[in-house]
Amino acid sequence: MFEKKLRLDALYDFYGKMLTEKQNEIMQYYCIMDYSLGEISELLGISRQAVHDTIKRTEKILENYEEHLSLYRRFSEKQERFEQLNALVEAYEKDFDKKIFESIKTLIKLEID
Amino acid sequence: MFEKKLRLDALYDFYGKMLTEKQNEIMQYYCIMDYSLGEISELLGISRQAVHDTIKRTEKILENYEEHLSLYRRFSEKQERFEQLNALVEAYEKDFDKKIFESIKTLIKLEID
Repeated sequence: MFEKKLRLDALYDFYGKMLTEKQNEIMQYYCIMDYSLGEISELLGISRQAVHDTIKRTEKILENYEEHLSLYRRFSEKQERFEQLNALVEAYEKDFDKKIFESIKTLIKLEID
Repeated sequence: MFEKKLRLDALYDFYGKMLTEKQNEIMQYYCIMDYSLGEISELLGISRQAVHDTIKRTEKILENYEEHLSLYRRFSEKQERFEQLNALVEAYEKDFDKKIFESIKTLIKLEID
């Protein structure tokens, strides 16, 4: 559940600009300000069920963008690669091993090609 | 003109999956196979004007995606950063200057944060 919310927050971060004003309003409360369905319902004067339905529908839209464009997946992979690169640079700094330096070079070159 | 076509090719590469089948068909001929409007018109049995209009309309759709999601701009910037990183690594390999090594570390850390 927690993982699912984190994923939704991230997808909203990447694709929020593609949503309608109405969807955006609810998702801002839900994803950025972390309001509960009840709180959003009260704030906007609509039923809890309507809030729930909009979030579910918007989640599907965001997942559809991700399925086609993979912004979130690519971003996560990029983060991983840079963390790997960072670990290598730190290891190299410790004992200046030529092999480690070659790995750093290779990783960087892979990104350019 | 040439620059504009290159940009369109790149945008199609990034956002092509978001287009309809019909738009995709024409854009594949135009962007990937580099056919002329006349050739596409002949192949699909539609007027040259219809091909032209579909490409123009699709270009607007692709630019709209780019305006909101910036995949192409982010990709270009990423490429630049890695080329910079690569140049630094090559410079460091030449004279093992500690300052250059620090720049490499900083650039990598910037990407992670």
